[in-house]
Amino acid sequence: MNIRDYVVKMGHLHPDREVLVFQEHRFTGRQVRDRIFRLSNALLGLGLEKGDRVAVLLTNSHYSVECFYALACAGLVLVPMNSRNAAREHLYMLENAEVRAVLVGQEFLGVIQPILSEASGVSHAVCINGPAPQGWLDYETLIAGAGVEEPQIELLDEDLSSIRYTSGTTGRPKGVMHSQRGALTTVYSTLMDGLDIKSTDSVALIGPVTHASGSYILPHLVRGAKVVILPGFDVTNVLRTVEQERVTMIHLIPTMLVMILASPEIDRYDLSSLKTIRYGASPISPDVLKRAIGIFGDIFVQGYGLTEASMPMSLLLKDDHILDGSEKSIRRLSSIGREVTFSKVRIMDDEGNFVPPGQIGEIVVQSSQVMQGYWKNPEATAEALRGGWLHTRDMGFMDEEGYIYLVDRKEDMIISGGFNIYPKEVEDVLYMHPAVLEAAVFGIPDEKWGETVKAAVSLKTGQKATEQEIIEHCKTHLAGYKKPTSVDFLDQLPKGHTGKIVRRELKDPYWRGKERKIN
Amino acid sequence: MNIRDYVVKMGHLHPDREVLVFQEHRFTGRQVRDRIFRLSNALLGLGLEKGDRVAVLLTNSHYSVECFYALACAGLVLVPMNSRNAAREHLYMLENAEVRAVLVGQEFLGVIQPILSEASGVSHAVCINGPAPQGWLDYETLIAGAGVEEPQIELLDEDLSSIRYTSGTTGRPKGVMHSQRGALTTVYSTLMDGLDIKSTDSVALIGPVTHASGSYILPHLVRGAKVVILPGFDVTNVLRTVEQERVTMIHLIPTMLVMILASPEIDRYDLSSLKTIRYGASPISPDVLKRAIGIFGDIFVQGYGLTEASMPMSLLLKDDHILDGSEKSIRRLSSIGREVTFSKVRIMDDEGNFVPPGQIGEIVVQSSQVMQGYWKNPEATAEALRGGWLHTRDMGFMDEEGYIYLVDRKEDMIISGGFNIYPKEVEDVLYMHPAVLEAAVFGIPDEKWGETVKAAVSLKTGQKATEQEIIEHCKTHLAGYKKPTSVDFLDQLPKGHTGKIVRRELKDPYWRGKERKIN
Repeated sequence: MNIRDYVVKMGHLHPDREVLVFQEHRFTGRQVRDRIFRLSNALLGLGLEKGDRVAVLLTNSHYSVECFYALACAGLVLVPMNSRNAAREHLYMLENAEVRAVLVGQEFLGVIQPILSEASGVSHAVCINGPAPQGWLDYETLIAGAGVEEPQIELLDEDLSSIRYTSGTTGRPKGVMHSQRGALTTVYSTLMDGLDIKSTDSVALIGPVTHASGSYILPHLVRGAKVVILPGFDVTNVLRTVEQERVTMIHLIPTMLVMILASPEIDRYDLSSLKTIRYGASPISPDVLKRAIGIFGDIFVQGYGLTEASMPMSLLLKDDHILDGSEKSIRRLSSIGREVTFSKVRIMDDEGNFVPPGQIGEIVVQSSQVMQGYWKNPEATAEALRGGWLHTRDMGFMDEEGYIYLVDRKEDMIISGGFNIYPKEVEDVLYMHPAVLEAAVFGIPDEKWGETVKAAVSLKTGQKATEQEIIEHCKTHLAGYKKPTSVDFLDQLPKGHTGKIVRRELKDPYWRGKERKIN
Repeated sequence: MNIRDYVVKMGHLHPDREVLVFQEHRFTGRQVRDRIFRLSNALLGLGLEKGDRVAVLLTNSHYSVECFYALACAGLVLVPMNSRNAAREHLYMLENAEVRAVLVGQEFLGVIQPILSEASGVSHAVCINGPAPQGWLDYETLIAGAGVEEPQIELLDEDLSSIRYTSGTTGRPKGVMHSQRGALTTVYSTLMDGLDIKSTDSVALIGPVTHASGSYILPHLVRGAKVVILPGFDVTNVLRTVEQERVTMIHLIPTMLVMILASPEIDRYDLSSLKTIRYGASPISPDVLKRAIGIFGDIFVQGYGLTEASMPMSLLLKDDHILDGSEKSIRRLSSIGREVTFSKVRIMDDEGNFVPPGQIGEIVVQSSQVMQGYWKNPEATAEALRGGWLHTRDMGFMDEEGYIYLVDRKEDMIISGGFNIYPKEVEDVLYMHPAVLEAAVFGIPDEKWGETVKAAVSLKTGQKATEQEIIEHCKTHLAGYKKPTSVDFLDQLPKGHTGKIVRRELKDPYWRGKERKIN
């Protein structure tokens, strides 16, 4: 079986079911399959060949679904472009990945058109959802002229399927290579672990489908369930869509959850169709989670994954989200769950040995969903995959039953006076404070201790707290050396395009002019 | 991932959960893993090498689980022996498969000991659950002397994992070869389709675990659910076990279901823990199914598979078992459902073309669960797998949404006066008669028509019906040429060791002395 077999299966088993919705557009299984295969055939008809890289720059829509799977079905390699990137960054990716064709939403023409002449390898440009400029192909015209038959390109497990550029905290972004097998395993993993998708289900995709949200598309389509694509995150639109489309499952990142919980609109909509709320992408404070379970019920599933090892590597299942107040259940609420059917997760020390339960080390994983490597970067590949395990650079530990506890990013660890401090532990305590809406903790330079702990917080509307109150609150819940020594108050914390709080943007100004970010 | 990874995972995630039960024996995940690995290591320690065939002859017990997975983990090839076979048949398999070791339950020593000297390739014999005779090894002594570490034999997807001998309706039994990948895909398929196994679940295995029932073992173990092995089918014991072990899932074959439904004991036990009743292995009449749904509720899932393509190739899910009386729902109750995530199922004519919906042809399948071929029988392999599709010799058709309707075995089709008659259609009508408990239909020689339709039935206790009444009943529900022209009344119909009714045993006496079984 390969990805294309599942596009065939969707059309075969659900020809007349409505399976894909974006705004006023609604498509049946047969229509989705036909549009995908038409695009595959059209791209091959342009002369693109198996293994050629094709960049896609779109905001969330049904076009994203068509483009992703048309490329996979034709053996072409998807290079998703980040809509927040600047022209210079786009150009770097087009050149680095040696992209031969671009599929671009009309809203991005302004940024892409000027750089296309510089990207010498790009021989085809397709404009989606708007009038195609001179020299560009129009998407709908292109697919209307192509056949609906299944493309006959051979697809092998080890064929390259996508190159996804990491946001790159240091240096140039790296291209993460995933195989056809990796893409397929993500489908299986989604079908197998934590979700029991039926044809009567529907999923609303809120985050960019180039990221974790995208993993839910094909598993739902192939079951004849409905995939509702939202153009972005807007609390009211999310709540309205859940009510109108009787959505059974959504995937959120913690900051979205915080905003939904804080919204006065939450009571105005019928959200009873929801059977699963999947969350992930960054740690969530137990306090927020408890409030969420109180409102939505026992329907939460947490996923853990990374660009280099697609979601999910581990899951904290509904059965693990127990609010009985026992020490064990409270502790597990702060874990990222256990390895899934298709993954092996272990904790490793710097010498490459597995460490016993309870001991902190680097989280390492093995899975078909682990990347093949970094594009044209054998050194970084060898480093990340040394010993046959993907080294995640996430620090954590495991309990006796395999529950994994994320401690922090290896690079975010604060070393103060010789003690290791993990920011997340301090942030969890900050979120317990009734006035705190968002919190981030990081190390800043300190003459005496090397580094000292700094907190940045935003407060809930109408709530107040002083720096001293916040520090005192931490002091009562943490060892003294872990408490923040100063607090910055911000209207909101900086976030990446997936909605994660970016500590680095807060931290960097304090380290400007220093050679290393650890003092 | 391979089968051994899942044995590791069971021990890693569920070390202290009770996951395996047979009579008074109860084992945790760690204990099961350790016993499996000890046996793997012990067998390798005897000098057996990857790819060597090992025959296992046991009645259902926890030993079956240990033997099956110990062989898979060591890269050894399982040859399950059929407990109903005679010594001569056992000897044929030992020689044909070139078996190097046998693992035998003490109850079978009487049949195996005398033939071992003739099976020249067998160099090791292990006696399970009883005193080992001279020259035999004792199972518990053997494993007690071996280590618990994970065996370090490399396992590849295409490695041979088992040879299962078909009952062989004509000629010598054929050895069906399945790969490690096939065994693994069966696990995934069970986890992915129609069951959503949680650690709080438990499955009671009633049929021989060498057959379809065995496919449920590892999926439940790896989820930390409880596998309860029953020594055989006994209505009272099944009902009692469901109540005592709070069983959530059982797998039945239709004749078992008929017997359970007919039992006065059904009301005496608390069966409310059951969430799924899986059935399969032979067609079931819509009438029996309707009665069953009336009693147990909407918890039925039907699976279709065969020795050459492991269960399930298709599933009729709970959502498909709708009793609203509509034409569509009644029709679907008689289907074998739709292809599963890991399979492609199509209908093919004798020229190798796919036929349109509604048209009868041979059911063909593609899947990782399809056999690698027949052992040392390239001709039969080429014939069965021609064109890259397994030809099941089951005749059927498909509707517009991919629901598959089994018509009959290719060889069981009756040709009477030039008309094709499929026995199952007639049997379904016989089961609608209130006095009929079991029914089988087959063709017998007829001077005028070539063949004519014969029915064999057994009646429910206390019920009566004459031959003429039965024939009249069929006449009102079937075209005239399909009705039986005569009826045999039997106390019970002959069944194979899986409990299926064996039409052949009824049919053969009528054809003795004829060269072909189709006149």
